Amino acid sequence: MTTDAAPGAAARRGRPGYDRDRLLAVVVQAFNDHGYEATSLGMLSERLGLSRSAIYHHFDSKEQMLEVALAQALDGLEAVFDEPEATTGPADARIRHVLRGAVLVLTAELPSVTLLLRLRGNTEVERAALARRRAIDGRLRALFERARDEGTLRPEVDPRLAERLTFGMVNSLVEWYRPDGRTSPEALADAVLAYVDAGLTAR
Amino acid sequence: MTTDAAPGAAARRGRPGYDRDRLLAVVVQAFNDHGYEATSLGMLSERLGLSRSAIYHHFDSKEQMLEVALAQALDGLEAVFDEPEATTGPADARIRHVLRGAVLVLTAELPSVTLLLRLRGNTEVERAALARRRAIDGRLRALFERARDEGTLRPEVDPRLAERLTFGMVNSLVEWYRPDGRTSPEALADAVLAYVDAGLTAR
Repeated sequence: MTTDAAPGAAARRGRPGYDRDRLLAVVVQAFNDHGYEATSLGMLSERLGLSRSAIYHHFDSKEQMLEVALAQALDGLEAVFDEPEATTGPADARIRHVLRGAVLVLTAELPSVTLLLRLRGNTEVERAALARRRAIDGRLRALFERARDEGTLRPEVDPRLAERLTFGMVNSLVEWYRPDGRTSPEALADAVLAYVDAGLTAR
Repeated sequence: MTTDAAPGAAARRGRPGYDRDRLLAVVVQAFNDHGYEATSLGMLSERLGLSRSAIYHHFDSKEQMLEVALAQALDGLEAVFDEPEATTGPADARIRHVLRGAVLVLTAELPSVTLLLRLRGNTEVERAALARRRAIDGRLRALFERARDEGTLRPEVDPRLAERLTFGMVNSLVEWYRPDGRTSPEALADAVLAYVDAGLTAR
């Protein structure tokens, strides 16, 4: 549950009540509640019950907190596309794999993915994250183009639109999915896949 | 293009370059770029090239600008659900009608719908708008429940999940749809409906 297990990380710990990951979780929640820009260090200090210098014990800046949180989301999504099931075999099976995987990353990393999806691109860190996000979108679009070439995308479906609409459906989960709700991540992935299949034909 | 045609509205005009609607369009763009909370009156003044008092000539407060913009989006969406095609006949046809209508409202009122969908609920105006939005979600959910009762919802599809995923797909359009792009609103609605149909059976 914590990345602080790495050697040398102990120097970043030492404040009772918060390790780096738990502090970041509170920070990300504040960013999601108020927006990154509108969240001041004073607001974070109040939420955490920590002084500013105690916060700076863990992170160099508000921007670094954003960067680390966004990396959690982006690393998870990119990893799905690097899995063997996403890089070998028929394109329609790869599409099903990456969209199921995206649902599972989203439900597991809900706060950081929410933060990623709400970015406006007003800072360098945000723009770099948005560029990585666009590259992920591009990888899904390439799979839909491959499915078209292999004859498993329904001919009336535009690959780009298929990418936008299916990722859009997946991404919209951040608006309502709650980990303690009645729908499990796997059941959610099944439901999404039923809709995704509407754009694909049987092989 | 302007609501200022109403009697008495002339008193609200008079500043060269901006009527109330065009001013609001610039304001909504600023809210969408920076978030409502993070957008100061100073920032609006700079974008508009107007003094604060000139802005107050059109609106009483930043909150009133938000309220008027959100009403544009909400009125449009509610109107779709009040149309005869949404209130009479088989539920699956009503569902197709309201989701097509939602796509058309979203593309026509893109900035104000974007603002609505990004609300965090930190003020009374935001919470009231979110309550109206939840009521709209509830109306779509009721239609999916009706489709289940009429036997036109695929039995393995949960009505609540169908509502979340189909509206989620529609709402995700605000993230990428551009009025000057290559996809027309009607073509977009056709593509969305092809996915929506995956959850419905033929009658």
